[in-house]
Amino acid sequence: VPPTDLEALRGAVRGPVEETAAARERAGRDGSHLNGRPRAVLAPRDVDDVVAAVAWARSTGIPLVPRGGGTSLDGESVPADGAVVVDLSGWRTIREVSALERWARVEPGVVNLDLQHALAPHRMFFPPNPGSWATSTIGGHVGTNASGPRSFRYGPTRAWVRALEVVLGTGERARLGSIAPKRSVGPELGELLVGSEGTLGIVTEVTVRLAPRPAVRWGAVVPVPPGARLGALAGRLAAAPGTGLSALEFVDAACARALVTGRGVDWPADGPLVLLEIEADDPADADARLGRVAAVLRAAGVPGIARRYDDADRLWSERGASGIVLDEQYGERIREDVAVPLPAVDALAAAIDGIARAEGVPVYTFGHLGEGSLHPNFVVDPTSPPADRIRSALYDAALGLGGTISGEHGVGRVKRPFVARELGPTGVRLLRAMKAACDPDGILNPGKLYPP
Amino acid sequence: VPPTDLEALRGAVRGPVEETAAARERAGRDGSHLNGRPRAVLAPRDVDDVVAAVAWARSTGIPLVPRGGGTSLDGESVPADGAVVVDLSGWRTIREVSALERWARVEPGVVNLDLQHALAPHRMFFPPNPGSWATSTIGGHVGTNASGPRSFRYGPTRAWVRALEVVLGTGERARLGSIAPKRSVGPELGELLVGSEGTLGIVTEVTVRLAPRPAVRWGAVVPVPPGARLGALAGRLAAAPGTGLSALEFVDAACARALVTGRGVDWPADGPLVLLEIEADDPADADARLGRVAAVLRAAGVPGIARRYDDADRLWSERGASGIVLDEQYGERIREDVAVPLPAVDALAAAIDGIARAEGVPVYTFGHLGEGSLHPNFVVDPTSPPADRIRSALYDAALGLGGTISGEHGVGRVKRPFVARELGPTGVRLLRAMKAACDPDGILNPGKLYPP
Repeated sequence: VPPTDLEALRGAVRGPVEETAAARERAGRDGSHLNGRPRAVLAPRDVDDVVAAVAWARSTGIPLVPRGGGTSLDGESVPADGAVVVDLSGWRTIREVSALERWARVEPGVVNLDLQHALAPHRMFFPPNPGSWATSTIGGHVGTNASGPRSFRYGPTRAWVRALEVVLGTGERARLGSIAPKRSVGPELGELLVGSEGTLGIVTEVTVRLAPRPAVRWGAVVPVPPGARLGALAGRLAAAPGTGLSALEFVDAACARALVTGRGVDWPADGPLVLLEIEADDPADADARLGRVAAVLRAAGVPGIARRYDDADRLWSERGASGIVLDEQYGERIREDVAVPLPAVDALAAAIDGIARAEGVPVYTFGHLGEGSLHPNFVVDPTSPPADRIRSALYDAALGLGGTISGEHGVGRVKRPFVARELGPTGVRLLRAMKAACDPDGILNPGKLYPP
Repeated sequence: VPPTDLEALRGAVRGPVEETAAARERAGRDGSHLNGRPRAVLAPRDVDDVVAAVAWARSTGIPLVPRGGGTSLDGESVPADGAVVVDLSGWRTIREVSALERWARVEPGVVNLDLQHALAPHRMFFPPNPGSWATSTIGGHVGTNASGPRSFRYGPTRAWVRALEVVLGTGERARLGSIAPKRSVGPELGELLVGSEGTLGIVTEVTVRLAPRPAVRWGAVVPVPPGARLGALAGRLAAAPGTGLSALEFVDAACARALVTGRGVDWPADGPLVLLEIEADDPADADARLGRVAAVLRAAGVPGIARRYDDADRLWSERGASGIVLDEQYGERIREDVAVPLPAVDALAAAIDGIARAEGVPVYTFGHLGEGSLHPNFVVDPTSPPADRIRSALYDAALGLGGTISGEHGVGRVKRPFVARELGPTGVRLLRAMKAACDPDGILNPGKLYPP
């Protein structure tokens, strides 16, 4: 008798192929409300295993879904039913760090925070710091072009990838990008993979760029008067010289109250807040810089700084608890993510409130104000018709303001029906052409990113 | 009788179609030693003209070659014989500047230096500053991913493009990219155009990112002892905190002597030099930062700074005269451009000297040391067999050291035969797939970039 499909896969790879209900259940979920029913979970031992798995997928037609920390929020990692999940979370080796050249060559399963700890003795860091950084992986960062508060200064993952090793959907093993610090040999092909959500290839190594660690990073909490124009305020702060501003965040009044009451965070809770981070050479320098920030705030009619943190990461970790608090207090919600040009951020905030009112649901918004990026959390069953209406209205509002349906979470399964609205017919055609070039048989992470 | 091809083009566009020998001669050359014989030169009046020209090219099979300042150094702008040049150098309007959002929306023919002047009142600047910046255009910068000394801190053009309007070779008008400050909706398609050398589409508008202008930019000239390890020195300077280092350049002894004797530049001329730029908030800050640079130099066995400039652009303009001086003194030379990882830069310099010795030709090298990027100028007839041998040996040396055949000039016609050595078969295949998706009839700038 011919071997079953999974027996053939087991014969072709050295890593384990798990079929237990527990393994399949775990690999069927990500940070979204969605779940899938994968056939099995392969933990590849090496690149040869990945190449063999791709060859097997092409011959059987059974798709593969690469997976890292499983923290994606729009179903990017949720497998199509019957697919085999390629679990790279065990690939946690930091293969090489060059402090001189400011790069680290890492396996795709390396967790962001583990990388930061390993880089500390080199006085370097990897700038993207999404809220999930304690569990999300560098491979996943590449998949969704992850960012976080510090992208205000440093930009998203796209800006910090120098080279990639990848097994394309064709089965080709390729090294894309270069460790030469500058290059002009056509379009940079490695950039195609950033944001591709595992649909073009399975990334097996990433060479990330590093930045020097600032000596001092302070955080600050700034209460904002009702009716303040947030976009203009952010623009003035961003343009002021000598502040060392590296993150500029927003928390609305409802969200601040939830954190203060739910977590005992020591913030003013009677209105919206701006949270910010500055980088400096030493505490005296930080003090001078924060003084310049305070002067800009006063000139804009904002009284000043309510609380200072001498470790900005503590501020981000307190703010990061907002998701947990909202989960505890409200359970089901949709965790959204849109971005607009800075002058339109007040109009976006108003549109968010209008959408929530129209549907009669509470909304809790925080976000990366300095980049026009807001995360409204609508308290509603994510699978309900109101949730669908809210999403559609939210994306229309963002696009109508010159913005995007996703600032940093990605597209996955949730936003896939809306991609054509943003990219237009030529954009969609080019995206599909890249897919055809890299994965002609469509075996990689089907049902994501590309419009149906 | 049916109209001739050019009559049909004239009937389809509103801009002039010139056929004079002078116009064709001028449009046949760029900064390289190559020249082509175009059939005519179209100065399109608007995007509709560009769309009409592309439709005409598709129907006649006569290729189009977009052209800006014509400063490219490897034949990127040299038209195939019989092609029609699409001259965008008259498209010089800066359409909009948003200081709040740090972008400028410009026509592709805007000259870099004109843009800088226009941005000065906004206290902003566009970081790429190639040596050609007084005449080269933003459209050309996109075509070749141009950079220059300040890319040490700021990166090349690729890092400073937010959105593009383009007419693809298919005739499609598309807007790629976004003015939202952050986005994660698949791979960024606008990035495909950066470095594509006019082979995928004709760019009709560029939205560039801007950076805040530093208050103070000082330059410094540092004599380097014979035998100093340049890569290690550059690495120490780059890693030192609190220096504000924004450019780190190299000039070899021969090149320094040529500038001192040929231009009367007031530099030490008895050995190689490092040139650098620092950014600071005010002169006192600059003084402190330059002091930190001097301390790193002393610790590395380098006596110190020989000369200081309180306007770094004056230093770059003096250094920029090296090309003119070499032209005056030696006439024909090949102006090369390779880059390697920083630790390999001394080995690259040694390889350059070895290649020159083996061929018995003088070589004058300067370059962007901090990015491992060197420009050796071999004094040799660019069309001679020794020039071919030199190029091939140079690219082999750079690739053998983990580097690239082009740090910033691009590929054009000169380096086209060597692209496959660098990108490998999968890279070349992906490049061709993008070409097929954007310009299926091959009517845009044929004979460039893609391996024969």
